[in-house]
Amino acid sequence: MCGIIGIFNNDKAAELAALGLFAEQHRGQESCGMAVNDGKIIKLRKKMGLVKDVFTPEKLKILQGKIAIGHVRYPTRGTSSIYNSQPYIVETLSGPSYALSSNGDIINYKEIRQELEAKGVYFSSKNEGELILKYIVFYVEKEGYSIIDSIKKMMKNIKGAFSAVLATKEALYMFRDPYAFRPMTYGKTKEGSVVVASESCALDILYMDWKKEIKPAEIIIVNKNGIESIENNPNDFRVTSTEKHCIFEHIYFSRPDSFIFKENVYQVRQKIGNLIAEDDDINADVVVPVPDSSNIIALGYARKRNIPFEFGLIRNHYVGRTFIQPEQTIRDESVFQKFNPLPNFFEGKIVVMIDDSIVRGTTLRKLTKLIKHAGAKEVHLRIGSPPVKNSCFYGIDTPTQKELIANNKSIEEIKDFMGADSLKYLTIEQLRKTVKEPENFCYACFDGNYPVR
Amino acid sequence: MCGIIGIFNNDKAAELAALGLFAEQHRGQESCGMAVNDGKIIKLRKKMGLVKDVFTPEKLKILQGKIAIGHVRYPTRGTSSIYNSQPYIVETLSGPSYALSSNGDIINYKEIRQELEAKGVYFSSKNEGELILKYIVFYVEKEGYSIIDSIKKMMKNIKGAFSAVLATKEALYMFRDPYAFRPMTYGKTKEGSVVVASESCALDILYMDWKKEIKPAEIIIVNKNGIESIENNPNDFRVTSTEKHCIFEHIYFSRPDSFIFKENVYQVRQKIGNLIAEDDDINADVVVPVPDSSNIIALGYARKRNIPFEFGLIRNHYVGRTFIQPEQTIRDESVFQKFNPLPNFFEGKIVVMIDDSIVRGTTLRKLTKLIKHAGAKEVHLRIGSPPVKNSCFYGIDTPTQKELIANNKSIEEIKDFMGADSLKYLTIEQLRKTVKEPENFCYACFDGNYPVR
Amino acid sequence: MCGIIGIFNNDKAAELAALGLFAEQHRGQESCGMAVNDGKIIKLRKKMGLVKDVFTPEKLKILQGKIAIGHVRYPTRGTSSIYNSQPYIVETLSGPSYALSSNGDIINYKEIRQELEAKGVYFSSKNEGELILKYIVFYVEKEGYSIIDSIKKMMKNIKGAFSAVLATKEALYMFRDPYAFRPMTYGKTKEGSVVVASESCALDILYMDWKKEIKPAEIIIVNKNGIESIENNPNDFRVTSTEKHCIFEHIYFSRPDSFIFKENVYQVRQKIGNLIAEDDDINADVVVPVPDSSNIIALGYARKRNIPFEFGLIRNHYVGRTFIQPEQTIRDESVFQKFNPLPNFFEGKIVVMIDDSIVRGTTLRKLTKLIKHAGAKEVHLRIGSPPVKNSCFYGIDTPTQKELIANNKSIEEIKDFMGADSLKYLTIEQLRKTVKEPENFCYACFDGNYPVR
Amino acid sequence: MCGIIGIFNNDKAAELAALGLFAEQHRGQESCGMAVNDGKIIKLRKKMGLVKDVFTPEKLKILQGKIAIGHVRYPTRGTSSIYNSQPYIVETLSGPSYALSSNGDIINYKEIRQELEAKGVYFSSKNEGELILKYIVFYVEKEGYSIIDSIKKMMKNIKGAFSAVLATKEALYMFRDPYAFRPMTYGKTKEGSVVVASESCALDILYMDWKKEIKPAEIIIVNKNGIESIENNPNDFRVTSTEKHCIFEHIYFSRPDSFIFKENVYQVRQKIGNLIAEDDDINADVVVPVPDSSNIIALGYARKRNIPFEFGLIRNHYVGRTFIQPEQTIRDESVFQKFNPLPNFFEGKIVVMIDDSIVRGTTLRKLTKLIKHAGAKEVHLRIGSPPVKNSCFYGIDTPTQKELIANNKSIEEIKDFMGADSLKYLTIEQLRKTVKEPENFCYACFDGNYPVR
Repeated sequence: MCGIIGIFNNDKAAELAALGLFAEQHRGQESCGMAVNDGKIIKLRKKMGLVKDVFTPEKLKILQGKIAIGHVRYPTRGTSSIYNSQPYIVETLSGPSYALSSNGDIINYKEIRQELEAKGVYFSSKNEGELILKYIVFYVEKEGYSIIDSIKKMMKNIKGAFSAVLATKEALYMFRDPYAFRPMTYGKTKEGSVVVASESCALDILYMDWKKEIKPAEIIIVNKNGIESIENNPNDFRVTSTEKHCIFEHIYFSRPDSFIFKENVYQVRQKIGNLIAEDDDINADVVVPVPDSSNIIALGYARKRNIPFEFGLIRNHYVGRTFIQPEQTIRDESVFQKFNPLPNFFEGKIVVMIDDSIVRGTTLRKLTKLIKHAGAKEVHLRIGSPPVKNSCFYGIDTPTQKELIANNKSIEEIKDFMGADSLKYLTIEQLRKTVKEPENFCYACFDGNYPVR
Repeated sequence: MCGIIGIFNNDKAAELAALGLFAEQHRGQESCGMAVNDGKIIKLRKKMGLVKDVFTPEKLKILQGKIAIGHVRYPTRGTSSIYNSQPYIVETLSGPSYALSSNGDIINYKEIRQELEAKGVYFSSKNEGELILKYIVFYVEKEGYSIIDSIKKMMKNIKGAFSAVLATKEALYMFRDPYAFRPMTYGKTKEGSVVVASESCALDILYMDWKKEIKPAEIIIVNKNGIESIENNPNDFRVTSTEKHCIFEHIYFSRPDSFIFKENVYQVRQKIGNLIAEDDDINADVVVPVPDSSNIIALGYARKRNIPFEFGLIRNHYVGRTFIQPEQTIRDESVFQKFNPLPNFFEGKIVVMIDDSIVRGTTLRKLTKLIKHAGAKEVHLRIGSPPVKNSCFYGIDTPTQKELIANNKSIEEIKDFMGADSLKYLTIEQLRKTVKEPENFCYACFDGNYPVR
Repeated sequence: MCGIIGIFNNDKAAELAALGLFAEQHRGQESCGMAVNDGKIIKLRKKMGLVKDVFTPEKLKILQGKIAIGHVRYPTRGTSSIYNSQPYIVETLSGPSYALSSNGDIINYKEIRQELEAKGVYFSSKNEGELILKYIVFYVEKEGYSIIDSIKKMMKNIKGAFSAVLATKEALYMFRDPYAFRPMTYGKTKEGSVVVASESCALDILYMDWKKEIKPAEIIIVNKNGIESIENNPNDFRVTSTEKHCIFEHIYFSRPDSFIFKENVYQVRQKIGNLIAEDDDINADVVVPVPDSSNIIALGYARKRNIPFEFGLIRNHYVGRTFIQPEQTIRDESVFQKFNPLPNFFEGKIVVMIDDSIVRGTTLRKLTKLIKHAGAKEVHLRIGSPPVKNSCFYGIDTPTQKELIANNKSIEEIKDFMGADSLKYLTIEQLRKTVKEPENFCYACFDGNYPVR
Repeated sequence: MCGIIGIFNNDKAAELAALGLFAEQHRGQESCGMAVNDGKIIKLRKKMGLVKDVFTPEKLKILQGKIAIGHVRYPTRGTSSIYNSQPYIVETLSGPSYALSSNGDIINYKEIRQELEAKGVYFSSKNEGELILKYIVFYVEKEGYSIIDSIKKMMKNIKGAFSAVLATKEALYMFRDPYAFRPMTYGKTKEGSVVVASESCALDILYMDWKKEIKPAEIIIVNKNGIESIENNPNDFRVTSTEKHCIFEHIYFSRPDSFIFKENVYQVRQKIGNLIAEDDDINADVVVPVPDSSNIIALGYARKRNIPFEFGLIRNHYVGRTFIQPEQTIRDESVFQKFNPLPNFFEGKIVVMIDDSIVRGTTLRKLTKLIKHAGAKEVHLRIGSPPVKNSCFYGIDTPTQKELIANNKSIEEIKDFMGADSLKYLTIEQLRKTVKEPENFCYACFDGNYPVR
């Protein structure tokens, strides 16, 4: 998970990029970066920390220019270091310069990197963005390809998920892998600025004339002549016959006010809630979400079943890292620094607690215990996604297969581990019903059918 | 608004105080501080910034001791400076030392300070905490009073709101003004640690054996002999015959998971929602809160009127200051950095939007405009409190009378200013129904009946 | 050791104060502070660190005003903390405000502080500056004294060394203890600004019309009416019949370009060098100073004896703290991070090494060893002051009596401890010859005759 | 100007590297960096700032490993940015990794970079170190050269000055351009650690068993088998028949306690002083250096002419940037924040002021004015080097030809510009006499005879 932004033709390009990154902050809180092009040089600023702290008004003042791209980064496997944060730039002495932000994950990273290293292209990080950028630049600068052809060659050879934006001194190139794993939307304002972002909510900072999702394998060039689309046949570049959007973007990652993969995230989540409710017959007093990620699912469930929805757990929004090691004399789990149950609320109640998914299961177990300790008579867990059994290779930082609880325990065993009175997951069939074109989605983390490996 | 914490007899006093302050972070984000007593000296750390940034594990390690008090501060009229942040300490060369954290506001600050200055007591800030502390210390050290008698003298003479905790090398003293304006709760763990905080949610970090609110004018001493209460007759110290709890704590300030003034905040808010709904007959498609402060009120309203409750506005939780000045080319109001409407949601809908209160009215006006721009057919505003017409003198940083919109415009005019289709406030009568002992509350910001001035 | 500065009637008061403090940085590197008066309020900035880091152009911009006082602080016995750094301020609500910087040490600190505490005056530090300030303010504000009378009362009762500058909203008061232990000089520019500083070198940032030393017990008031001197008879305030200037200011502390106690520091140091040389007959190849503090003494010695002066030890000027703990595999003493002998220089040479004084003797011992290791045939130590046998109570942070090597060993034993071939100190008689009015100086650290105790 | 360090086979490699960089801090104060090899990965830390601030004990603790290289950087033409600071590293996925620090300047930088870019090697900076490193790595990794052969190829093709150290996971390679423009010394301790540095003074932190200068075009490999030297015939790589050491290292750059180019810097500077004195017949009262860079030259001059040497100008060692913009009301030149004349010293005197060189001449002009204002009757300038008429292309950041005063004015005109009574430069012939092998030095900045261009 990461978030990208690109701005073309705006005197306040850096300010807008910062606003866009700020709207995508939920996609990555570890580091953020921006490359701004003033027509002559590219100014780069990358730093560990939140957008509001890294891009202060003073710093934005220095980043003058009309083209800007940016990135927020989620800490993944690589060492947590500024050397792994995006954007990356290549400036050649002879003139051309390139900057790139990308979101996603490369399957054949090792192979491609060794191929490039064997050609004399060296790297300062283990980041996919640097790989994609240097791949493209190599074929343009060394082998004489056009940028478009180089991007196409990259699409053919680099396998995995990428939504990316590339800036040169004159143009912005946006492109997306042929499976369209990660969301990517662009649009134009009346004044003629073009904005591209991982999520549509980042475009809403400007009154947009129109917004569109980038198609799989599409390449869009924005320059002084306008916006040109190169619509490639994605089947020339992929092994599946359809797109493979990440369904988890709808379940958890994207902001509910984003419109991605042709759907409103908010509506998909409500449908999830409705569908878990459908054949559920638990007689409960109250439906409680694990806030905030499960609020909408819980609302959908509660309405369908006509059980009161209540914010039974209060979340502290000031959390950063868990800054104090839990001790037994303190409430024995660090989760209590983040969630607190309402007082005098749960006593004697039969509670349905909704969570969007179960990965390791440790937090949900603690919350179940917490609610029971608060007096709940029964706690029934309802989960807005099928059991997560497989790691993701397309951009999501899931733990190893071993650590996934659904891999090690049956649903019954998980229920017992949680200390819950019942546990029900959404089924894959139900999940497919939440979107209009279910065949266009990837469900690999649930069913193991990896579209590309 | 500020938040206090006190810990007695715990080897991890500083860690617990940090956790408590963290739970009260919503009461003040400007600065925070802590004074820790190791039996010999008091170590003090105060700094602008959030609890998680100021009290890192490294810094907490230095703050060893078994007694700790702390404070989070909301920026008020005084200069925003570290010199105005709490706790304050007085260390005498001859031995005794004192540290104090308080929450509230002093009406006769000027008079008392001049009185003390005339006696040779000098100040390094304009903060009420320093005033209360030096008042007490002066009468103990100079005039030979016992600490209890000095606190009583202070209660007689210093008029206003204060919930305070005073630490000496051996004991913790907790006390509260005779009107009990601000919340204050203490409790004891099985292991024998005593914790006191502005809000009960800050006590929930430990499994408490019991929790109690401190009574008006009560003084509680905690030392190695245990907990002793000096229950004063509050009428000896006040001009009213009842307590005067701040009703705004229930409407807006306190966390919904706190139990204050003998009520669950969450329940009071739901009742508010129910009561606005009572005689409302607007035919609406959806009820939308201004998140997060109005969520519970909106839920109460929606359920009562049987209209779907939806999170139509999505809030960005990463906000700090508005870090980019709004421009016309950007969406024309800074509020859009914080709130975004769901896409494809409002079109053609009749919307009830709920807010907890209207102070200046500028944000709500922008949100109304935003929702209309998103396609809403009608926007009806429902407010969880009566019109705010008067400034507060008891600890809440309201703007001057002039800036309060309800002071300058009729409800009809406010509706027009908002661009809303209708506007309804909760009445004072309704508000009184939300609590069991309505006479024990202060409604001065609505009705101008200041209990003490 | 500390340094003070005061500026009156200059639109760039804060900038000038920063320059002055910068010139006095050698008097204290731990923390620095400034209080600037803009006619309405006093702005205060105090921070650990060097002047150039604490008073950046951005920070100085905020410190507008025409009156400024400042301070650099040397870490002394008190805890190294910002709460102990100067200036201190007292602002009364009724109007008057006071800020003070002082340099020196109070003998009867404990007694005076207890006296004030008994009167209800409380302290936030253990710093003498706060004591002096609150003493003066107490008698003005509480007891109705004029500022002048209050300063006089303070001079009578507070025993010790102090050179101080006090700023009110309209005036600057400068005063000095009746013994005039520490240097203090003021002057006026053609444009009418008045500047006061610990050392005259800090005045040289402006072209001064004239400069003068403040007399013992003198009080000078600078306000819109000009400069007025209150010349008190110092004998009314002291137990000695003469001044007692600190001779160590000439030997070591003050900058060589300062003019203090009616003498040029540079010339005094040269005389010291001449006098050690006088009856010395060592046949040496070279005279080497311990740089930079002994350079001038060594130059005086070398010229008198007609032996070549050479910079045989090179000093690294980038030192701060010794940042790496010495290990045996590294050169076995941390002193080598600071000093390095010239290569191929000492072999076979008879060396006279000059140091200004010996306190603990550890550094000089290491340097002797270092030079011997570099090949010197003989190393003869010559010291620019008599043996230091007593602690100072007037502003210099000497170690306890016990740690002073001259207290524990005879000169012969010190020589052996050093590993030197001979060792010669300046005698007190010689030292007295270096100044014109030897009776006006304090030699207590050498002879134990404390003028006041 | 920059400084390099390398440590091989020491458990405290990072600590030693930090000490070494600290000793070379005079060669670059803008940024510093270190790469430490723990046998598996290379840890890199680069930051703007001084060694003591960047490499704190906490940071050094993280940099575990037995091989370390480091760098201090002087701000040159490139943008002052962390992206231009050294060391640079290349880590290949297949295993090998390389880190390099270099000191010097590349003449054909543009040509070589374009050549590499055309081959697909991209750069993240405009720094020569990155160029040298990627050149070597390209030929090793892509073209199958051994490291030694690749360094040789680089020496053949990359023209300019470089003293460099390259670390792999197992070995340290040190090498120097065939002209040996910049100093570079290595040595071994009894315990078997190898240390290499720009200046020998950085080796003196350890008791070295022996020290040696690296020969022109020599490559030295240090690995577990010991130290192996590849002595190339430098004439195979260069267009001159001799070395071309930078004579300015002796005049100004190097520390006086360094032994470089087969000479003691201190002695060379004294000879310079002697030689300027030789045919000088000014009758002066005093010789004053511009401290500290001209101290030794002035000492040599004074002794030869038997005129007293005095520290007439006192330098403030706490300077960083000139932190306050000079104003006319303040002493009208920023130079006064750095230098102050002794009081009562210059009146009526005939002064010889010594400086090591004149570049733009602005500072020396101000100092001349300052001394005259202090009362000097005559000021005679003597300069320890010939007129600087040409820019340097081998590592020294001289201003453009135009800005060099000696390019625009005759000596007579310079004297008038300075306001001096006379001005005498060292001649090139004299300068050649200060070293044993004058033909082995580069004098291009004086005579324009660039050895390579």
